[in-house]
Amino acid sequence: MSQFGAIDKLAVSTIRLLAVDEVSKANSGHPGAPLGMAPAAHVVWSQMNMNPKNPDWINRDRFVLSNGHAVALLYAMLHLTGYDFSIEDLKQFRQLGSKTPGHPEFELPGVEVTTGPLGQGVTNAVGMAIAQKNLAATYNKPNFTLSDNFTYVFLGDGCLQEGISSEASSLAGHLELGNLICVYDDNKITIDGSTEVSFDEDVAKRYEAYGWEVLYVENGNEDLEGIAAAIAKAKLSTTKPTLIKMTTTIGYGSLHQGNHSVHGAPLKADDVKQLRKKFGFDSEKSFVVPQEVYDFYQAKIGTPGAAANKKWDQLFSQYQQKFPQEGAEFARRLRGELPANWDSALPVYTPKDSALATRKLSEMTLDKIFNELPEIIGGSADLTPSNLTRTQGAVDFQPPSSGLGDYSGRYIRYGIREHAMGAIMNGISAYGAHYLPYGGTFLNFVSYAAGAVRLSALSGHPVIWVATHDSIGVGEDGPTHQPIETLAHFRALPNIHVWRPADGNEVSAAYKVAIESKSTPSIIALSRQNLPQLEGSSIEKAAKGGYVLQDVANPDIILLATGSEVSLSVEAAKVLAAKGIKARVVSLPDFYNFDKQDEAYRLSVLPDGIPVLSVEVLTTSCWGKYAHQSFGLDRFGASGKAPEVFKFFGFTAEGVAERATKTIAFYKGKDVISPLRRAF
Amino acid sequence: MSQFGAIDKLAVSTIRLLAVDEVSKANSGHPGAPLGMAPAAHVVWSQMNMNPKNPDWINRDRFVLSNGHAVALLYAMLHLTGYDFSIEDLKQFRQLGSKTPGHPEFELPGVEVTTGPLGQGVTNAVGMAIAQKNLAATYNKPNFTLSDNFTYVFLGDGCLQEGISSEASSLAGHLELGNLICVYDDNKITIDGSTEVSFDEDVAKRYEAYGWEVLYVENGNEDLEGIAAAIAKAKLSTTKPTLIKMTTTIGYGSLHQGNHSVHGAPLKADDVKQLRKKFGFDSEKSFVVPQEVYDFYQAKIGTPGAAANKKWDQLFSQYQQKFPQEGAEFARRLRGELPANWDSALPVYTPKDSALATRKLSEMTLDKIFNELPEIIGGSADLTPSNLTRTQGAVDFQPPSSGLGDYSGRYIRYGIREHAMGAIMNGISAYGAHYLPYGGTFLNFVSYAAGAVRLSALSGHPVIWVATHDSIGVGEDGPTHQPIETLAHFRALPNIHVWRPADGNEVSAAYKVAIESKSTPSIIALSRQNLPQLEGSSIEKAAKGGYVLQDVANPDIILLATGSEVSLSVEAAKVLAAKGIKARVVSLPDFYNFDKQDEAYRLSVLPDGIPVLSVEVLTTSCWGKYAHQSFGLDRFGASGKAPEVFKFFGFTAEGVAERATKTIAFYKGKDVISPLRRAF
Ligand SMILES: [Ca+2]
Ligand SMILES: [Ca+2]
Repeated sequence: MSQFGAIDKLAVSTIRLLAVDEVSKANSGHPGAPLGMAPAAHVVWSQMNMNPKNPDWINRDRFVLSNGHAVALLYAMLHLTGYDFSIEDLKQFRQLGSKTPGHPEFELPGVEVTTGPLGQGVTNAVGMAIAQKNLAATYNKPNFTLSDNFTYVFLGDGCLQEGISSEASSLAGHLELGNLICVYDDNKITIDGSTEVSFDEDVAKRYEAYGWEVLYVENGNEDLEGIAAAIAKAKLSTTKPTLIKMTTTIGYGSLHQGNHSVHGAPLKADDVKQLRKKFGFDSEKSFVVPQEVYDFYQAKIGTPGAAANKKWDQLFSQYQQKFPQEGAEFARRLRGELPANWDSALPVYTPKDSALATRKLSEMTLDKIFNELPEIIGGSADLTPSNLTRTQGAVDFQPPSSGLGDYSGRYIRYGIREHAMGAIMNGISAYGAHYLPYGGTFLNFVSYAAGAVRLSALSGHPVIWVATHDSIGVGEDGPTHQPIETLAHFRALPNIHVWRPADGNEVSAAYKVAIESKSTPSIIALSRQNLPQLEGSSIEKAAKGGYVLQDVANPDIILLATGSEVSLSVEAAKVLAAKGIKARVVSLPDFYNFDKQDEAYRLSVLPDGIPVLSVEVLTTSCWGKYAHQSFGLDRFGASGKAPEVFKFFGFTAEGVAERATKTIAFYKGKDVISPLRRAF
Repeated sequence: MSQFGAIDKLAVSTIRLLAVDEVSKANSGHPGAPLGMAPAAHVVWSQMNMNPKNPDWINRDRFVLSNGHAVALLYAMLHLTGYDFSIEDLKQFRQLGSKTPGHPEFELPGVEVTTGPLGQGVTNAVGMAIAQKNLAATYNKPNFTLSDNFTYVFLGDGCLQEGISSEASSLAGHLELGNLICVYDDNKITIDGSTEVSFDEDVAKRYEAYGWEVLYVENGNEDLEGIAAAIAKAKLSTTKPTLIKMTTTIGYGSLHQGNHSVHGAPLKADDVKQLRKKFGFDSEKSFVVPQEVYDFYQAKIGTPGAAANKKWDQLFSQYQQKFPQEGAEFARRLRGELPANWDSALPVYTPKDSALATRKLSEMTLDKIFNELPEIIGGSADLTPSNLTRTQGAVDFQPPSSGLGDYSGRYIRYGIREHAMGAIMNGISAYGAHYLPYGGTFLNFVSYAAGAVRLSALSGHPVIWVATHDSIGVGEDGPTHQPIETLAHFRALPNIHVWRPADGNEVSAAYKVAIESKSTPSIIALSRQNLPQLEGSSIEKAAKGGYVLQDVANPDIILLATGSEVSLSVEAAKVLAAKGIKARVVSLPDFYNFDKQDEAYRLSVLPDGIPVLSVEVLTTSCWGKYAHQSFGLDRFGASGKAPEVFKFFGFTAEGVAERATKTIAFYKGKDVISPLRRAF
């Protein structure tokens, strides 16, 4: 006898019609995928372990809608299962200021991650599965299974075509993430029409090649038993992630089902009416939810979920008694708090300390804090020996079968997969338990991950990029590896720290701010070459984002620099001083935090009356808001020994001093208003 | 009897030692991959159809070193086979200003594309294979096979791990690109050590899933016959691209062979010595090339290649006589010239013409020029109906077996693969024959392709991005789809046009400049929403990148805008005029071309004495070099109806006018120097 009956059919129809009604009411959105995937949503959610009244419960099963345009389906599920989404919210779909925006947004209750940009969600989910494995390996004890949740993903053709999902899926197979279950909506349609026009690869075979379990549901439109059987089987696949290839019809039930026209535009009114009728509903009424559907989900999800949550709370309470140290640590992490005085571990330097590459100083910082903060989980996109991201004694996060580490390990070998690394970090962060992921690559290749970095910033995942080799200082590798536009790009993104520290104290400041950030990601750009420890730097000052490093009375000019150009500017100031020209040197390691300081402070750093020359061996395009004139590199770099390349482009103490002199001459006798002054 | 003998072995040893000597002399570089891949280089090059004295011959076989860090191998091959690379050039490896930079650069003779950023090269090669198929289908005639070249690729683990290669390989399988042959250096090592740490997928199975032929060479270190047999078999695979999985030992012959330490650092002196000895060379001498090796390559490649080139020239000469129209067109394309007066096809508008979305105006422009310019080859990353990139009557570029188009088609269904699209366009452009690729996606998702866009700019491939949905004007799709930082990012990149046209004439200007560009790519950002045809715009003026759209005598302020904010600024100027405030409106659709104008012109647009307010509903971060004050959007957008979202952020005529008034007040009585003025 089937485990599914009339109520399930009714629930599925309710989901379908709610999603269609949302789109119709908004006159905007995507009805096609929700119509096809409603049965899967019903079956998957019906067996998920979640407490809609406590969406943050750490051991909930996660659901990620990687095909985020199908969000009307997600809002329908959240409403029906008792999350804080009312019918009124659904009626406000895609309206300004509503709780139901056009794509899923992380801030919303029950929405695990922001999706829409394709391929991100499934990759986030790999991160969530990693976090779960790590949490379980770190805290579970015999008879105390604090963590055992699954992560479910819905994804479509777009997610599978995007390269990021290939990167993530290959890694997930390697990592044996049996806690990850993906349902692929194989509807054979994308916006350009049939998938035959560009996508006829053998997806199942590809995923088997990645080491995944691949299961099939032939009739995803109706076969609830088939879906349930596949999910049950997937849950038994403990050392392989699972892809369920589920064939559906896009826009199922619509007069235009199976056609790409139902993907991204509301159904016509008569189509909606026949759809309601077809599913046994009143053809004239919208947003109808039979009470028995609410009751069903309450019985299936709400009640058992609340009970499971309560049972978990009790278990955790006992755990804290039995394992006070681990319990306290876990509890602290659930509160999202750092250990008291954690930052006393951060290294402090004086000018007597050796000149070192900031990437090396970053390694020294990580060495100090990695063991203090069990929530840190690091890695590199195959540049460990260059990024210097692996701390002393770190254990690799690896499946135990590999013999290369275990799941309690906190160093991830991401492989040469920057984009996936970015989105996996987002997923680890979104998982909760105060996970703090960092990942290393060359600064130039953070650009490969731009799609994921944007979502870190938009969602407020405080992940950390350890971005080494930050300029032409990479030398011989040449222009393919020398960033020019990279910092300007990320500085233009809202809500992100973009650090370029000048010395050890500034590196410590970058990590301090990054780790204490609740909702802002960080990119820390680090030098390959050695830089001196500066007179005048401190963690406190650098943490403000910008500060006066070295001053004189009544300066003629301000040299405003970052990273390797700060010490260069100090040298230039000496050259100028020898000529009787007085220069203040300002270090501006992080635009974001500097902008957050009050106006009085900022104007004390860059006051009226003194011309400001920015000095950064990267594009000048982002400097207009702080500097009157800019010395930078508005062209691609060159392959050669780093000091020779610097010299070639005029980045010497004399070269900076010469431009400072010209800047002073240019502004002589003119009003000099601080670039910080705003008219509105 | 083997086709290979002592001379081949000697040649391979010569290649290996030359590559090692380059790295040792530079004291920088990557010896590992060249040592492993030298036999493959020898075998592949020995049978390639190329004329080292004429590296631009259109029907040459292409060679792409996708693992670009192995460039010492490439320079060795180019030298040995008679390209314009001397031993002295090899000795200057990685030195500033030399002809042998740290990664392959497109400008160099015999270097087909710039590589180094992993995954790009193999994807470029897919573009080259597409171009070849199209060229053959367009111009070949019975007995006149003008085009039949192969594209060979060397690639390593990194290229296969990067998502971009997954995207490209899936598409290449779909497109049945039998002219593409990739040799995978399966050396089981990446920088982080064994590939077991992150990459144990079944690569062969994955490529079979993409529809590729997969062949094996078990001993790539020595088995020349095996490599040759695989290449021969690959050439017979006419409807499938081929991946040859060739097992090698990284750093073969070194004392540290098989270890990741030989990947990216010079071998130690004693190691080099034993290596020379092992290969039968004098252990003390560097850069040794036995004359018989030069002779061998001359006989194998130089002489037959020159003859083949000459034969082709004769064939083409006959072709031009027999098929004067096609012949003249092909010849024109080989000269890199556009048809005379091609631009007369560009649409011109007056203010009486309808308001239209610039994406629609883009479509109308493409409709006019697509058939005029057979070198244009367009496409979209699955957003054809949104990007409006498919012209009337266009034929899809598809394998004939698909029944969906043929290889003479010039519209590529890229699938949801933006990064691959970008790099494929680079490859199509690099192929020659004046191919002009364009590709559509949403502006926000050009960021997914940042790695490829950077290489377009660095290499100077004049590809065109049709980047629609350029702002919060996308409305309901919300912040995941609303660009904020995107234009600032690409404006910060050297050598790229970043257009944001305000109306039809500006759209025509963007295409005119983009198509006439020899070595600068273009991104054309286009609106989803309708915009009016402006009084004062023209193709000629817009082509300058920036111009005075509407003026008044003695303006109090300059409103400096792009795209949809130009007409908004015109409205704001009216609001201001009603209050007696005089505003000049400047449109700045392309920073790049504006910066190229002479100073007198630029200062005539943005003169001293008048405050400039930039108005663009995107980040303000890039506006400092043109504007005193900026009105923009330094936060993420919001989901809602587009007009409501614009209003919410103050982007109304009144909102702009209010900020203009404040700007005027702020500068009252102060020196106002044009932001264009530079101190140096
Ligand atoms: Ca689909
Ligand atoms: Ca390798």
